Amino acid sequence: MTYCVGMLLDAGLVMLADSRTNAGVDNISTFRKLTVFQRPGQAVFVMMTAGNLSLAQSVTGHLKEALEDPQEGRPGLFDVSSMFEAARCVGDAIRAVHARDATSLDAFKMEFNVSVILGGQIRGERPRLFNIYPAGNFIEATGETCYFQIGEFKYGKPIIDRVVNREVRLQRAAKAGLVSMDSTIRSNLTVGPPIDVVTVKTDEYRVSSHQVIDAEDEYFRLIRARWGEALIQAFRDLPDPDWL
Amino acid sequence: MTYCVGMLLDAGLVMLADSRTNAGVDNISTFRKLTVFQRPGQAVFVMMTAGNLSLAQSVTGHLKEALEDPQEGRPGLFDVSSMFEAARCVGDAIRAVHARDATSLDAFKMEFNVSVILGGQIRGERPRLFNIYPAGNFIEATGETCYFQIGEFKYGKPIIDRVVNREVRLQRAAKAGLVSMDSTIRSNLTVGPPIDVVTVKTDEYRVSSHQVIDAEDEYFRLIRARWGEALIQAFRDLPDPDWL
Repeated sequence: MTYCVGMLLDAGLVMLADSRTNAGVDNISTFRKLTVFQRPGQAVFVMMTAGNLSLAQSVTGHLKEALEDPQEGRPGLFDVSSMFEAARCVGDAIRAVHARDATSLDAFKMEFNVSVILGGQIRGERPRLFNIYPAGNFIEATGETCYFQIGEFKYGKPIIDRVVNREVRLQRAAKAGLVSMDSTIRSNLTVGPPIDVVTVKTDEYRVSSHQVIDAEDEYFRLIRARWGEALIQAFRDLPDPDWL
Repeated sequence: MTYCVGMLLDAGLVMLADSRTNAGVDNISTFRKLTVFQRPGQAVFVMMTAGNLSLAQSVTGHLKEALEDPQEGRPGLFDVSSMFEAARCVGDAIRAVHARDATSLDAFKMEFNVSVILGGQIRGERPRLFNIYPAGNFIEATGETCYFQIGEFKYGKPIIDRVVNREVRLQRAAKAGLVSMDSTIRSNLTVGPPIDVVTVKTDEYRVSSHQVIDAEDEYFRLIRARWGEALIQAFRDLPDPDWL
């Protein structure tokens, strides 16, 4: 499984991805799911993937090849002039992998299962965030819904719904992402550290910070411990019902 | 969808069920999913169902008919001498419905999808709690895992994991159940009030309280508002990361 969350804020982008992969519960490995493509000062793209790892790696590989060896009908990410075009470019990469692999997977009754969150900024535009589906179609984050999740999203959704909106600072959004990741890791064994946390400040056109947080990370441990204690205290402070 | 949670404590049982049912997102109704069977002083059973509503109602109907008209090979719930036998009785009811309906459902590519949480106490035993699957097999709650959930369980699981264990009082467990229900209702439109909350005190062999909580219920509104505020405050109190 996987858990990735991308947040689009006035201040920029915050992207978090876990790195646990499992083929069955008896085969668990660590694979990074977050990839950065950037030409500092010109354009930055942060891509996170969920679903079948071979498909996710193929999509990423396809995009990397297109960057190194652009061909007719296969523009690279740095050939595009808007984030909308970049999302189409990723959608096309997914469709190319589908054309190559879907029939063979189907023979093994395996679903074509890969999703992507793409965030970034190209000079001349504001930062933008997209959720790209296995069919290559996509949706874009707006003011009302400024974040996307892929993979095991349910355990970590409530806290993000409560505290994240376009106005929050990058630090606060990163903190919310880590609390959300903590709730997910506690409940689903197939989501686990290290966690990639990337921030992109608006109008910098480059990655502003990239943290790789493992289970021993001091700040993550502090957040986990204090959040757990605070929840228990908050629960104790609620009045009991008087029915009994 | 549905969300039900049953908790087995030293002090007794706490069972909560929502009452929203949907056939698609454009057809939402209210159906109660919690049923009580009791002979006060002798035995009490609290049953909650999730899955296909017609199957759940058929299972409940089957059990009610067996109570009114016991036949060879179809013992009623009050004919059993242990909660283990009661769970088998419910499992047999599920299998009887499967024998009748599964082939016809399959012709419409519909899954045979019904699950039951059964809690109760029979004189001579301690209270016990079971999770009964669509195949009629079941598991029993133990000291390590003293609760079961069926339906949309993920949003509401973290808080129960943090605050419920065998030693907590009934009031506190009911409060945890309502906080868990609140998180679920906020995130999944197909889970909704009124909420049945039943408590059974150990060695009373009867329902001790049965609350039907609608969205306007004063205590539920208080819990929802204060929990939301407390979470936001707890989040603010966590230190921000210093990466940026």
